[in-house]
Amino acid sequence: MADRGEPSDQSASIRDMGRAPGVLPSGPLNAITDVAGVRVGQVTLNHGDSVRTGVTAILPHGGDLFRDKVPAGLKVANGYGKLAGATQIVELGEIESPIVLTNTLSVGAAMEGVVRWTLQQAGHEDIRSVNAVVGETNDGGLNDIRGLHVRPEHVIAAIESATTGPVAEGAVGAGTGTIAFGFKGGIGTASRQLPQSLGGFTVGVLVQSNYGGLLTIDGVPVGAEIGRYYLKDAVEAEKPDGSIMIVVATDAPLSDRNLERLAERAFAGLARTGAAYSNGSGDYAIAFSTHEGVRRTVARREAPAMIEDWPNDRMSPLFVAVAEASEEAILNSMFKATTTRSVVNGREVVIEALDVERVRTILDRARPLSVRP
Amino acid sequence: MADRGEPSDQSASIRDMGRAPGVLPSGPLNAITDVAGVRVGQVTLNHGDSVRTGVTAILPHGGDLFRDKVPAGLKVANGYGKLAGATQIVELGEIESPIVLTNTLSVGAAMEGVVRWTLQQAGHEDIRSVNAVVGETNDGGLNDIRGLHVRPEHVIAAIESATTGPVAEGAVGAGTGTIAFGFKGGIGTASRQLPQSLGGFTVGVLVQSNYGGLLTIDGVPVGAEIGRYYLKDAVEAEKPDGSIMIVVATDAPLSDRNLERLAERAFAGLARTGAAYSNGSGDYAIAFSTHEGVRRTVARREAPAMIEDWPNDRMSPLFVAVAEASEEAILNSMFKATTTRSVVNGREVVIEALDVERVRTILDRARPLSVRP
Amino acid sequence: MADRGEPSDQSASIRDMGRAPGVLPSGPLNAITDVAGVRVGQVTLNHGDSVRTGVTAILPHGGDLFRDKVPAGLKVANGYGKLAGATQIVELGEIESPIVLTNTLSVGAAMEGVVRWTLQQAGHEDIRSVNAVVGETNDGGLNDIRGLHVRPEHVIAAIESATTGPVAEGAVGAGTGTIAFGFKGGIGTASRQLPQSLGGFTVGVLVQSNYGGLLTIDGVPVGAEIGRYYLKDAVEAEKPDGSIMIVVATDAPLSDRNLERLAERAFAGLARTGAAYSNGSGDYAIAFSTHEGVRRTVARREAPAMIEDWPNDRMSPLFVAVAEASEEAILNSMFKATTTRSVVNGREVVIEALDVERVRTILDRARPLSVRP
Amino acid sequence: MADRGEPSDQSASIRDMGRAPGVLPSGPLNAITDVAGVRVGQVTLNHGDSVRTGVTAILPHGGDLFRDKVPAGLKVANGYGKLAGATQIVELGEIESPIVLTNTLSVGAAMEGVVRWTLQQAGHEDIRSVNAVVGETNDGGLNDIRGLHVRPEHVIAAIESATTGPVAEGAVGAGTGTIAFGFKGGIGTASRQLPQSLGGFTVGVLVQSNYGGLLTIDGVPVGAEIGRYYLKDAVEAEKPDGSIMIVVATDAPLSDRNLERLAERAFAGLARTGAAYSNGSGDYAIAFSTHEGVRRTVARREAPAMIEDWPNDRMSPLFVAVAEASEEAILNSMFKATTTRSVVNGREVVIEALDVERVRTILDRARPLSVRP
Repeated sequence: MADRGEPSDQSASIRDMGRAPGVLPSGPLNAITDVAGVRVGQVTLNHGDSVRTGVTAILPHGGDLFRDKVPAGLKVANGYGKLAGATQIVELGEIESPIVLTNTLSVGAAMEGVVRWTLQQAGHEDIRSVNAVVGETNDGGLNDIRGLHVRPEHVIAAIESATTGPVAEGAVGAGTGTIAFGFKGGIGTASRQLPQSLGGFTVGVLVQSNYGGLLTIDGVPVGAEIGRYYLKDAVEAEKPDGSIMIVVATDAPLSDRNLERLAERAFAGLARTGAAYSNGSGDYAIAFSTHEGVRRTVARREAPAMIEDWPNDRMSPLFVAVAEASEEAILNSMFKATTTRSVVNGREVVIEALDVERVRTILDRARPLSVRP
Repeated sequence: MADRGEPSDQSASIRDMGRAPGVLPSGPLNAITDVAGVRVGQVTLNHGDSVRTGVTAILPHGGDLFRDKVPAGLKVANGYGKLAGATQIVELGEIESPIVLTNTLSVGAAMEGVVRWTLQQAGHEDIRSVNAVVGETNDGGLNDIRGLHVRPEHVIAAIESATTGPVAEGAVGAGTGTIAFGFKGGIGTASRQLPQSLGGFTVGVLVQSNYGGLLTIDGVPVGAEIGRYYLKDAVEAEKPDGSIMIVVATDAPLSDRNLERLAERAFAGLARTGAAYSNGSGDYAIAFSTHEGVRRTVARREAPAMIEDWPNDRMSPLFVAVAEASEEAILNSMFKATTTRSVVNGREVVIEALDVERVRTILDRARPLSVRP
Repeated sequence: MADRGEPSDQSASIRDMGRAPGVLPSGPLNAITDVAGVRVGQVTLNHGDSVRTGVTAILPHGGDLFRDKVPAGLKVANGYGKLAGATQIVELGEIESPIVLTNTLSVGAAMEGVVRWTLQQAGHEDIRSVNAVVGETNDGGLNDIRGLHVRPEHVIAAIESATTGPVAEGAVGAGTGTIAFGFKGGIGTASRQLPQSLGGFTVGVLVQSNYGGLLTIDGVPVGAEIGRYYLKDAVEAEKPDGSIMIVVATDAPLSDRNLERLAERAFAGLARTGAAYSNGSGDYAIAFSTHEGVRRTVARREAPAMIEDWPNDRMSPLFVAVAEASEEAILNSMFKATTTRSVVNGREVVIEALDVERVRTILDRARPLSVRP
Repeated sequence: MADRGEPSDQSASIRDMGRAPGVLPSGPLNAITDVAGVRVGQVTLNHGDSVRTGVTAILPHGGDLFRDKVPAGLKVANGYGKLAGATQIVELGEIESPIVLTNTLSVGAAMEGVVRWTLQQAGHEDIRSVNAVVGETNDGGLNDIRGLHVRPEHVIAAIESATTGPVAEGAVGAGTGTIAFGFKGGIGTASRQLPQSLGGFTVGVLVQSNYGGLLTIDGVPVGAEIGRYYLKDAVEAEKPDGSIMIVVATDAPLSDRNLERLAERAFAGLARTGAAYSNGSGDYAIAFSTHEGVRRTVARREAPAMIEDWPNDRMSPLFVAVAEASEEAILNSMFKATTTRSVVNGREVVIEALDVERVRTILDRARPLSVRP
């Protein structure tokens, strides 16, 4: 049942085009898994006429997530969403479960999956409380979302399939049925690396894109050229509602407060893609640190501890990194997505993949490659 | 499966003793259902050696909750909890589902119950997004919480059994297995009525009590007299962790912001019961208004509307009302609770009800009835 | 002492170049004062070797601001700043004073100015509490900020000089000594108008720009072409600290909650200018509504009232408007700014205005005008 | 100009009566200065017919507050107040100035005082940004608050007079003109010490009391017996507006997040005094840690550091300590206050001190000393 998703049949990424956002280099995989230890697992439910959904699970590390919690921060740009686990992340500044993404109506089933999986782990026989972190976007445009097809076992399968290494992008996992800017959205990932002089850290981002606005790539309003954007002709065409979940990992030894600040900057990347930040789009960013020096091990949670701390005054380069990686992860989610067909409410629906070659043509005309950082 | 709970075998309430908190009169039922239209339904799962849990559902009104949303506010005194629906309440200032209370590990199942129930309602064939509001406390001290015994159908049954009128209190519904101050806690409710000169409104509160500290009744540290309280002999006996959910209803035409402020004042009542506000206690208050003039009907959500507004400068009496009702609801949850036995992890556990007659004796000695507002 | 600022000697605006951000039209003045009733007054302190500072005051309407309060919302993207009045805006959802901008160390003097002015107004003999809203950015790069040159009387003069009509931009008022992206920043303003079908409202923005990153205009990383940006050559050159204050006005009848949401979207415009959202940059947005139907008159604050309400579901076009206007207001603040010299700590400092013609050349080469919404 | 305040002519404290709140012991001074290093300085302006105001300054330590910042947290129970410095405390989790309390309309002057004092300190020649933390309550009931009698130099004097050791309470400093529950309020302080097994830390609290409700002492509604309380006879007599500032110090090595949580629990003490949490009462708590292991020294702010951390799971005893100390600090502010006369708006006003002996009589009758923890 678990899969890594189909490889995209599209060849080029924004990076291949020489138009990756920003000034910082990516990590080797250009993925959230460039942050050492981070694992991603996905289950794609793509069957029958109408089931186009799934699960994407991000594991902060390969150890016992409940016993060795990671510090974490949450920022909500628009809280029209069903994120589970929010208040405990904020209060305790930590995450103790995989972060699971799925569809809007399946958050309950996904929570149950996270709980069941956590209870089952060796050494967890005495656990009676789990803060399951489950985000969502609404894939009801392509998926029979009312059918509640995601079950707890799919979530467990996604978690159990999680690995380090490359991450399948596009119409996979929790991105199987999502739509962005009127095109097929999905799962995307990217990363940035800071030079040693600025700390040498990696920031990785994974997104589930399902929102709209005026698609902007490398600063060019591609959506306008294609003729498909929110407020085109001053009407609310191409409704931009739908949401985005942004998950940020870093190996910098950050406090929960500075992780919250890191999460805030993910929205700068979102803005640069032309997001409309619409009423109906739940826009969330969760950031965690994998650094051993800040991990909340059992020992550190029971007794006073020495922990590492990267100071406020040196945060700024990390902020740039997360904005860049978020923008690129979103573009990757679209560039890698594949045209998806479904039957919704008895009507056939086709959501086309962004035509990458057409984008290339538009960009080449509208924005020569000569001016770059 | 649905029930209204067993009547308590204890005869006296704090009000019967002439010691009801505060200066304002209660409504006729002294219950959240004194706010016209509010409905409560409960399912108690009390079977076998170890199942001591359940569901309590509060419906803001008897109409279509999704179509005719109510304005609402949320305050979190300590976010160590799994409340579902939090960010959307805050962002949109409204609730579109029943508010469901259950145990910590069953929030997922309860969300699914709320979603299924909402999707099933007539006229909801096109709904693809539901913000299920589900709160919890941890009944694992008496309940086989790891067994995940609460299922979506229990939640649906609780919702469907909801009625106006008296509310069963104590060890019922979501309070079946909860513990407060080392004694049996549970569901409690109370209300306050303002005189016409102050608006004439009713404020009703329902709580799921499951926390600790130093039990204080009518200002008397009863927990000390009984010899059972947190930090007794300067050790962490009687762990106060566990949480409390406080649900507040009013018929005052309040904005979501003023409902949030109303929710904040529920914690004053909590404090006066001797709560320790401990690290592990998730303390939440959700407030909503049932007033027709602020209800977010379909018409008002699609077009500019005139809505009623009770101004900031006249909020103070409502703030007193919610503090008083919260304190009394908590005491009612304990006074009405019955001794509960269970087998947890193979060991028999008995959590005794508060001995109301002993409390009366302590209070009569420690705090004569002569000085009262 | 009060002045409207010197007219800029630069001829072109981003709008003149045909590159105004976004898809919505501006209002006739392309200024915050396109929102009927809004007044702006500025005092520029530009004298001697080192005094390069001032005050910009925004008055939500021309009546009694204290008696007839306006609903308002605040969002903080990065709270490294000294904004006065923050908690009361959030708690009560309203503003009762002019919004005053000045330099970081003069917030105290500015508060006193706002308080004195408010107390002096006719009919205010009984007022004993004023929530002065004072924002700031740090102009210490050009100004003898430690000299505390802004005094309460300058603030009063700015308030008293406030008028409707065009707003002086660039190195005037609170923008006299600010720096953006290594160039002269300052005061900028812009507006957007929605078509009648989307409500017909106006959104106006005024900014005090004093931050950095990688200056991006019309999607082109101009800062990279010019060779001056944060993280150039992977070092922290061109420190992006400094802050931005964004003030948003609208005539839409919004609740304080929806004004808060409107404020949040101002940061999308900020992001699109290439802001680094650095640690040291306090990034704030305050939004208020001038609509009579939501104004908190004395009558409405003392008794239940009917107020207008623009629903959540129709907010999205306003969100686009504020993002566009914020981006353009920032660009205007730079395009209109003039090269400024000073002596700081005994050293001569020259902060050059952005070379608008050079920008035009870069844009023409990097981003032909052919692809536009 | 600086003074330590007049010694109260009242002999008994709540502690002398054997009725100190809670179960934990106080420190030797029963004052915020029991937290080693904390200094308090006060300036009382009590002259002429109508000047009844002042300044109270709390210094977290005796070193360079700006260079060696302390971690801090802020909680706002009701944000109807003018607290300066709020957003930066939250964003950076730290305080870099004295915490100054004064009257509502003098916050601007007090900010300027804090700024001037900070700029003047040796080694501060390059400082261009100071986050002055200034809280207030409204003493306009006794003080000619519109006269703006507090000037920056008073603030500087208060800061410079700050010492360790006993703290003057009652009608001194920022409490010179405040009113609580219809009686004279003012400055109060108290502390609690945890046993070594729970960490051995001290928590100290200082309050500026100026609010109302139904005065409750040792659980007894004393305000009712005296016949003076909010909502007496169901009318809004004894308006409870006015505010309270609560400053919390501890030597526990807490993160800013856990300091925020500590601040939250101060309100439990407030609630137990019978506070009405009224609309017009700005209720704020600021907590900081003096522990060297968390201090943000220059070295720790510029480079990665190891810092101490007291874990979430061991916070609960500290939470009890702050609730107890806050309650006692408030009672001390009233017990030590002296009857104060003034002329306000041409009318003589007398606000009587709480009659401590009458309180003792009421308590002895209403609440025998026999039942205590």
